[in-house]
Amino acid sequence: MSEAAQNAEIISVGTELLLGEILNSNAQFLAQELAGLGISHYYQTVVGDNVRRLQKAIAIACERSSLLIFTGGLGPTPDDLTTATLADFFNTPLIERPEVLQDIAEKLTRRGRSMALSNRKQALLPEGAAILPNPTGTAPGVIWQPQAGLTILTFPGVPSEMKAMWQQTAVPYLRSQGWSQGAIYSRTLRFWGIGESTLAEKASAQIQLKNPTVAPYAGKGEVRLRISTKAATESEALRLIAPVEQQLRDIGGLDCFGADDDTLAAVVGDRLKTSQQTVSVAESCTGGGLGSLLTAIPGSSAYFWGGIISYDNRVKINLLGVDADVLVQQGAVSAEVACQMAVGVRDRLGTTWGLSVTGIAGPDGGTETKPVGLVYIGLASPDSVESFQYQFGTFRGRETVRELSAYTALDLLRRKLILSIATP
Amino acid sequence: MSEAAQNAEIISVGTELLLGEILNSNAQFLAQELAGLGISHYYQTVVGDNVRRLQKAIAIACERSSLLIFTGGLGPTPDDLTTATLADFFNTPLIERPEVLQDIAEKLTRRGRSMALSNRKQALLPEGAAILPNPTGTAPGVIWQPQAGLTILTFPGVPSEMKAMWQQTAVPYLRSQGWSQGAIYSRTLRFWGIGESTLAEKASAQIQLKNPTVAPYAGKGEVRLRISTKAATESEALRLIAPVEQQLRDIGGLDCFGADDDTLAAVVGDRLKTSQQTVSVAESCTGGGLGSLLTAIPGSSAYFWGGIISYDNRVKINLLGVDADVLVQQGAVSAEVACQMAVGVRDRLGTTWGLSVTGIAGPDGGTETKPVGLVYIGLASPDSVESFQYQFGTFRGRETVRELSAYTALDLLRRKLILSIATP
Repeated sequence: MSEAAQNAEIISVGTELLLGEILNSNAQFLAQELAGLGISHYYQTVVGDNVRRLQKAIAIACERSSLLIFTGGLGPTPDDLTTATLADFFNTPLIERPEVLQDIAEKLTRRGRSMALSNRKQALLPEGAAILPNPTGTAPGVIWQPQAGLTILTFPGVPSEMKAMWQQTAVPYLRSQGWSQGAIYSRTLRFWGIGESTLAEKASAQIQLKNPTVAPYAGKGEVRLRISTKAATESEALRLIAPVEQQLRDIGGLDCFGADDDTLAAVVGDRLKTSQQTVSVAESCTGGGLGSLLTAIPGSSAYFWGGIISYDNRVKINLLGVDADVLVQQGAVSAEVACQMAVGVRDRLGTTWGLSVTGIAGPDGGTETKPVGLVYIGLASPDSVESFQYQFGTFRGRETVRELSAYTALDLLRRKLILSIATP
Repeated sequence: MSEAAQNAEIISVGTELLLGEILNSNAQFLAQELAGLGISHYYQTVVGDNVRRLQKAIAIACERSSLLIFTGGLGPTPDDLTTATLADFFNTPLIERPEVLQDIAEKLTRRGRSMALSNRKQALLPEGAAILPNPTGTAPGVIWQPQAGLTILTFPGVPSEMKAMWQQTAVPYLRSQGWSQGAIYSRTLRFWGIGESTLAEKASAQIQLKNPTVAPYAGKGEVRLRISTKAATESEALRLIAPVEQQLRDIGGLDCFGADDDTLAAVVGDRLKTSQQTVSVAESCTGGGLGSLLTAIPGSSAYFWGGIISYDNRVKINLLGVDADVLVQQGAVSAEVACQMAVGVRDRLGTTWGLSVTGIAGPDGGTETKPVGLVYIGLASPDSVESFQYQFGTFRGRETVRELSAYTALDLLRRKLILSIATP
């Protein structure tokens, strides 16, 4: 198969994936890494802990891909079948590796435990396969070329172990073997406050380009445009991508909040840090989610001082100074309460900005006039306060309403920071 | 192929999945739903926005599965190829459906937009295919039997649209066609505070069972044991599962915190609600994440009053009453400060319990004596306070340290609630 020349395939092994009990975050991580290395990758397969079906998946993958990356099925329990099934498929005996056995014993000792029979199984690897060391867990993987033109890498399913093994051993190995030649470079522009089809139509000229390509896609509230090109060097790629990026930024205007790994929280944080300003939050329906987003950014203590989670009205009154009469007359989910919460937290914490959220996340608590999904966001600047009303959807679920509330609050502050700094 | 008799396969279409730009949460949702309906499902495939490779994936899937569920590639943009590729693969013309065109026009009008040429494409469906209506978005899917013994369902990639279409139309259709007969029933027990291999060894007798089967797997800090059986009726399944579940609960003891959809936050919430007790939180390194977990539970306002995000030391002093001298002498990440935070928030909010977290999430801020990953959790009961010290790992990353901190705080409160209610 000509397609198999230099293509990777990710094969995730685990019945828990087929039962939907876990998200396949390993495949996402590996896909990002392969793209970064410029290794083409056209298929992903998920298969359960079943010898016969795993063998079928191996047979199909061998036909179309030359680098097979397995995750899962290396553990000590009886349903961990990946290593034995691979060895059997390629008619290769399993050999117990004393160095692996010793490593497992030492790790278990350090955790105050002794070697179990089930751990011993993890030292059995196919003859001729190199060990792919696992620095943190007990199960090592393999780097194995069972036949010409076919490389197999195996990893445990535990994401932290898989990632450490990938970065420490697999990446240097793949580079040394010439896998990473002429990488795919991409730049993803990120937008908030504009729908996918609106943006796609504004950017239709760019979306029709052949090199670089521009592809839109929509996440929860966010829309992205990915500009991609395959190039021999990064500077060549940048030369192709840069003018298209500029066009798309002009098209997006204020709705474009960043690129690649930028998050709303990071972008807001950068602006606050640069201008030596600070922010605090007062959260009702988000219950801490807004603070959690802000503090996900390393170094956020430079501009985020903290906040008050005022879930109960008594906390709104006692800790934020919200007027009890206003709570009764307007209700906790109201423009006035959002404003008082934002001002209250700004003044009590002594920050430049105060950002508040109050809303009805559901599924219960909605009324005719205040349905589920109704959210007010308050934004107190040093000398004024504004509120913003949103309807995030009655049937979109509690988590979505809470997430959209928190991100939208960050976006409001972002726009305010841009405009307040831009205008003298 | 005999295996194709009654098996589903999930085929996710999208280059963004191959580039790792999004998580394949759709596959997880559909996998859960198929398991719930008792529809066997042995493979998942991910393929990019590429006609030739999508055709190859269709060819493989037809051979081994009889129900093909596609997500993605139904949108208005040029890289949305699923419908046209399927029609071409089965030599079927695309026909413009006036009712779909009208539905799209109405939806766009309601959003204050007009029909674009790109939207018109979404009304082209294979001849003979039934429309799978999309209540919220513009792209409908199809229910199509292009050949005997093969059913195809297509969905857009936007999770909220896909889920609504699945529940409103696909599930009733599959039931009506006799797909849901003799379901796979499973019960997942959830554990916190015990490692996977320790638990697997304690439960080795159960893990060797053939019916029901018991499979262990590890998440971030959490370990689960899944008990599964295929049975004609739910009561028959329960009869098989119940005694094994009881054995595993006995083995797990206090480490078993719940089953299936139970979360630490929900379990803690139930106990607080039942005993009419309340909790508040004081958060430093988690920055609101603990409050966010607690308020993810609908109805949490019955027992969660709120909290103080004391990211900056001034907030610890001014809003929580932490002693400034102790902060200087012991440092913000210390047992004493954790205790003062917990007591401070309990007293200021007037709740039964006060739960605090202070730690070094990294990547910076660690020292020789207080490395990254060091976390203190404070737990104030009505008349006392305790602190607990953890080392969540120096190289596991900021998000992991923050998540483990928040979950561990919930687990501490859970154990305390069980023991304080159990002992008179």
